[in-house]
Amino acid sequence: MAQLARKAKEAARVVSDLSAKIRNEVLLTASRSLQGNTALLLSENAKDCGKARNSGISGALLDRLTLTEKRIQDMADSLVTVASLPDPLGESEGWIRPNGLEIRKTRVPLGVIAIIYEARPNVTVEASSLAFKAGNAVLLRGSSSARNSNRALVAILQEALKEHGMPPSAIQLVEDADRKGIADLLKLRDFIDVVIPRGGADLIRTVVRESSIPVIETGVGNCHIYADQEASIEKAIPIILNAKTQRPGVCNAAETLLIHEKIAEPLLRRLGPELEKRAVEIRGCDKTRKILPCKAATEEDWATEFLDLILAVRVVPSLEEAVRHIQEYGTGHSEAIITESVTRARQFQKEVDAAAVYVNASTRFTDGGEFGYGGEVGISTQKLHARGPVGLRELTTWKYVITGDGHVRE
Amino acid sequence: MAQLARKAKEAARVVSDLSAKIRNEVLLTASRSLQGNTALLLSENAKDCGKARNSGISGALLDRLTLTEKRIQDMADSLVTVASLPDPLGESEGWIRPNGLEIRKTRVPLGVIAIIYEARPNVTVEASSLAFKAGNAVLLRGSSSARNSNRALVAILQEALKEHGMPPSAIQLVEDADRKGIADLLKLRDFIDVVIPRGGADLIRTVVRESSIPVIETGVGNCHIYADQEASIEKAIPIILNAKTQRPGVCNAAETLLIHEKIAEPLLRRLGPELEKRAVEIRGCDKTRKILPCKAATEEDWATEFLDLILAVRVVPSLEEAVRHIQEYGTGHSEAIITESVTRARQFQKEVDAAAVYVNASTRFTDGGEFGYGGEVGISTQKLHARGPVGLRELTTWKYVITGDGHVRE
Repeated sequence: MAQLARKAKEAARVVSDLSAKIRNEVLLTASRSLQGNTALLLSENAKDCGKARNSGISGALLDRLTLTEKRIQDMADSLVTVASLPDPLGESEGWIRPNGLEIRKTRVPLGVIAIIYEARPNVTVEASSLAFKAGNAVLLRGSSSARNSNRALVAILQEALKEHGMPPSAIQLVEDADRKGIADLLKLRDFIDVVIPRGGADLIRTVVRESSIPVIETGVGNCHIYADQEASIEKAIPIILNAKTQRPGVCNAAETLLIHEKIAEPLLRRLGPELEKRAVEIRGCDKTRKILPCKAATEEDWATEFLDLILAVRVVPSLEEAVRHIQEYGTGHSEAIITESVTRARQFQKEVDAAAVYVNASTRFTDGGEFGYGGEVGISTQKLHARGPVGLRELTTWKYVITGDGHVRE
Repeated sequence: MAQLARKAKEAARVVSDLSAKIRNEVLLTASRSLQGNTALLLSENAKDCGKARNSGISGALLDRLTLTEKRIQDMADSLVTVASLPDPLGESEGWIRPNGLEIRKTRVPLGVIAIIYEARPNVTVEASSLAFKAGNAVLLRGSSSARNSNRALVAILQEALKEHGMPPSAIQLVEDADRKGIADLLKLRDFIDVVIPRGGADLIRTVVRESSIPVIETGVGNCHIYADQEASIEKAIPIILNAKTQRPGVCNAAETLLIHEKIAEPLLRRLGPELEKRAVEIRGCDKTRKILPCKAATEEDWATEFLDLILAVRVVPSLEEAVRHIQEYGTGHSEAIITESVTRARQFQKEVDAAAVYVNASTRFTDGGEFGYGGEVGISTQKLHARGPVGLRELTTWKYVITGDGHVRE
């Protein structure tokens, strides 16, 4: 493990020195190679999916693991997109101090980025391409349940590196039998600059607790939609359905619906049949259940990121109580209010402490691509360094380069 | 402890909502009150210094602890400076996506910042004023050896808060008998958003290892000056003397001098007497000792931040070896090259991986004030979020505020 990390650090020096042109060419080569290897990727992925199915994985998790021709094409396209993005390493700003000292702040790569994630093979490509484009070396610690898919993908990426005369150790897969491997990885402070866990709450807790390497925390999204007393029901229904059902297995899907008591009845009467049509299980508070017969929500439900077709529903007496609920159970990811009131929208946006706060839009938009960043390594729910989509810029740091002419401090 | 942190979190909500005008007024009130209480502060500080002297503290550490009329005036002035700085919370940038979704990225406070530091009372004022100006609440965990000074300073700051109708819990001193208190603090993830350790290597290691709260690592500065073969000796001597002796107890002071073998003899012959005049103890490599009789440097000396009038000196065969030495022993703080060669300056600035890389200037300039940031909470040696001086901007984060009109994701 330390050996892999040491090689990554050496590779990072090489990569940080490459021109944007060469970095982009590697990505374009990898894109073509992904397309050319679609059949191989599908068959490797089928092995993973077969095993996962036998182990009784949930529908949403299986969806994350599965590659299709379309998804492979999407990955190949995303590499072209990343290659076409502006180089984040070109940026600098400078100023001259009254004493004549010239200060320049220049954007440079982070160095070695370790990404620890679960069974989503597309993360392998998306995360490596962005980290590499930003001049970093990458250590990928994927889930063993996606091992065959990841091996095939990393082989393609490494082949592209080699084709352009670069060390394949710039993108490496870390394989180990158990979670002990993660603990070992998190101690390699001398070689790894940043760790990004991308996955469920459990994984993230482990990484945050055990890492002595700085962490960009991503991914846990217990997201809420609050339908305010002044909500347009016409807008609320499609937004709620979109946020819950368009792709339930991802972090920006909504998990809990909060409804102001004044519109609970008309909203739920129309929403109920729509949710049923889409096989969404409702877990409601007492007031919800008086309007819509459903399972009772438990305290645990409010705190759970279901990642599945389950929606917790609570009727609240006020916007303030909605905010309080979100502050108590939310994970600082994406929160939305549906309202026609400017004043209430403003209050919600101000008081809710989360990476993304929406007015009259689905939480599903919290995404590097949707924000115009051309991709992301994850959605950061912490406040340091990166909050929200972790795109190219968030995968860099800076260095002060200072030039004097014999300057000393008085 | 948790109780203090909970109160800080409540206060953070109040502070984040205040106008810049009121935040600045609190700082100006505190500034006047510091000046008006100079005698009290000196007598409280004298108690701390007396105890410290009896415990046999080093000269440099005693210098850090000591308040003088001038230093109190400096603190009062720094509050005026901080009040006059632009409000970091005013900033935002926005764009509209092709689908009409309006995205706005707004600078907001971090929330609750815990600062863990050693016996430097000026940090109490500097850190709180910057954190508060940026809209945060602050928990100060100072050294028990500065307890009397800190209590007096925090009382003055809290009085200023109260005078403007604000909760005094926006700036609180955490007092505990031992290091166990730090460990407890570092677990309060629900209430504290960021921890900033500011002090020696030992303190920082403890915080990094034990904290589950995101950390901005500051302060360990094993800084080097490399006098290149093409150095101007006229520039090298004052820069070396300044970096080592102008204030040896601080993190941006130089600890090791690396000299290209081609200029070792002329440089050391002239430098030696100057260092001796300033009572600097030299610990040299074999080649150094052949030119200048001195104590032999040990492996440990290369890795040590002396914070005292001690300079390790090593003669190196090349710029590459100087860079290698810095990468091995440096802490990523401030590194300088003295050279007249543009090419060699460029190579050094590119290859050295540190927050600040200097050409022909003293490392002592790595400082929020010297950079034009009007102050700092410390010098970050990590790559995430803040690298280099941690000023007002680095004490904020952002929030995406997104407005749609019923937008759903396809």
